Amino acid sequence: MRCVVLGGGGFIGTNLCRRLKGRVDYLRAFGRRQSFPEGLKGIDWFAGDFHEGSSVASAVEGCDTVFHLINSTTPASANLDKYADVQANVLGSLRILEACRAAGVKRVVFVSSGGTVYGIPKVLPTPEEAETWPITGYAISKLAVERYLRLYEYLHRLDYRILRVSNPFGPYQVATKGQGVVAAFLKRALAGQPLELWGDGAVRRDFIYIDDVVLSLELAALHGGTERVFNIGSGVGHSLNDIVGAIARLLDTQLPVQHREGRAVDIPVSFLDISRAKEHLEWIPEVSLEEGLRRTIQWMRQLS
Amino acid sequence: MRCVVLGGGGFIGTNLCRRLKGRVDYLRAFGRRQSFPEGLKGIDWFAGDFHEGSSVASAVEGCDTVFHLINSTTPASANLDKYADVQANVLGSLRILEACRAAGVKRVVFVSSGGTVYGIPKVLPTPEEAETWPITGYAISKLAVERYLRLYEYLHRLDYRILRVSNPFGPYQVATKGQGVVAAFLKRALAGQPLELWGDGAVRRDFIYIDDVVLSLELAALHGGTERVFNIGSGVGHSLNDIVGAIARLLDTQLPVQHREGRAVDIPVSFLDISRAKEHLEWIPEVSLEEGLRRTIQWMRQLS
Repeated sequence: MRCVVLGGGGFIGTNLCRRLKGRVDYLRAFGRRQSFPEGLKGIDWFAGDFHEGSSVASAVEGCDTVFHLINSTTPASANLDKYADVQANVLGSLRILEACRAAGVKRVVFVSSGGTVYGIPKVLPTPEEAETWPITGYAISKLAVERYLRLYEYLHRLDYRILRVSNPFGPYQVATKGQGVVAAFLKRALAGQPLELWGDGAVRRDFIYIDDVVLSLELAALHGGTERVFNIGSGVGHSLNDIVGAIARLLDTQLPVQHREGRAVDIPVSFLDISRAKEHLEWIPEVSLEEGLRRTIQWMRQLS
Repeated sequence: MRCVVLGGGGFIGTNLCRRLKGRVDYLRAFGRRQSFPEGLKGIDWFAGDFHEGSSVASAVEGCDTVFHLINSTTPASANLDKYADVQANVLGSLRILEACRAAGVKRVVFVSSGGTVYGIPKVLPTPEEAETWPITGYAISKLAVERYLRLYEYLHRLDYRILRVSNPFGPYQVATKGQGVVAAFLKRALAGQPLELWGDGAVRRDFIYIDDVVLSLELAALHGGTERVFNIGSGVGHSLNDIVGAIARLLDTQLPVQHREGRAVDIPVSFLDISRAKEHLEWIPEVSLEEGLRRTIQWMRQLS
């Protein structure tokens, strides 16, 4: 397998590169910047922007497998400028697909958003066939890219797999505005600062440890069946209050919390039905929430 | 009801304006050009391009109901340049939605594509809840716009209805490359030229006479229920060969046919389950295929 990880400098990308290194015939990481350069040591790095056709073309050249992890927005920022979100993520992804087709790439593995594409779910845990009426432009763009992948297979025989990943957390995650709540909590907890919580903390999410996500990506690249879309999550919902409690236990301390007003993009409850991935990818999440948090704390501590 | 018909100069738009004229408090038509200016006599015409924010803003100003019928591509052309299709139809529609929100419009009625959004249907007749994995970028854009409509209702309380219209035909339709097969057949038949048929003519489509479509648009503008998405079609599949046969009978002549190679965007069979529109819009298609063809022939004859 000759691989390129598009968005290799980000959270999932860095972890994926570390997993694939030495396990594949060739590995390249492509992106605008590396969040944690030390995490990518020894990995071929192509710096470039996915808005430039020539950058993308050289990024995928000579590879048979392309991991597409690039996203320029967050669920909240996409709603503030839906137009920019489409330009970046839909048009950028079309540029990637065109480059893959031209370069004779065999398979694209795309990370979609299990936490947002289903909107406010009618069925819990939510299966892949559920309705997709999102409440953020972020997910509308993800769904459009999913459909272009199917179209490229139909028109051009470019194979693909889509992983609708829930809420991943773990080492190399950066707490950005409105995403990466675990990283944000841990950073503040370790700095002795009060945690910031949107709403009352009752919203439930499907948190999944990054090593399990990265394993599913590797399995998706090798998968031989007819299924194309897989939910990737723990299959269980945990509230933000649960997370705060678990962190407090692990750090053996009290964690003061500052409550902020809830946001329109926040879905009250979301967790995924992962039976398809279990059956067809032979994948199962192995790291519990508490164990994942323990490992993430350990990583954060050795950072500083 | 104070209405503007965006795309008022096109096939559906011209017919809709003719229907609404005198039946609503105010009516305006907006578009780049009028296919049949004589059809829009006496209707306020705003010439403009939906790619220009200021044009769109003045088009919707002072209206409570916006009919969005604009589309810059065809199923075939969208696949040749998916990038341009997204730029025109998705970004253009976002511009319309922003203008509607800013102007305090109450409802947007959007014409989506019942013949393409379901891709190659697994269920026939196809209901609104069926899977949507299209084989043309044209439909991927339509689906994205459908989702933005839902998002604008969620975020900004802009009400909407979506009509997934199958294959409309009738007066004021122009036979363009790859769309409007009935208009193309009739034009050639009346000119004594052989008909051009893509593939063997066995592909079945859901043809619906334009007066029935226009009625459904009016009902959708007035609809008070909770449903948002409606299939609009005859509910029956007719092959292209059926159409040729019906035209031959109506014209009482032999119609020589030239066969061309089938196209990748052509779905073998497509017809819609219209029970939701029947129940919730209290709409029913009233004009049979043969009667619709008869009226269209009559209209075409008085043109020349």
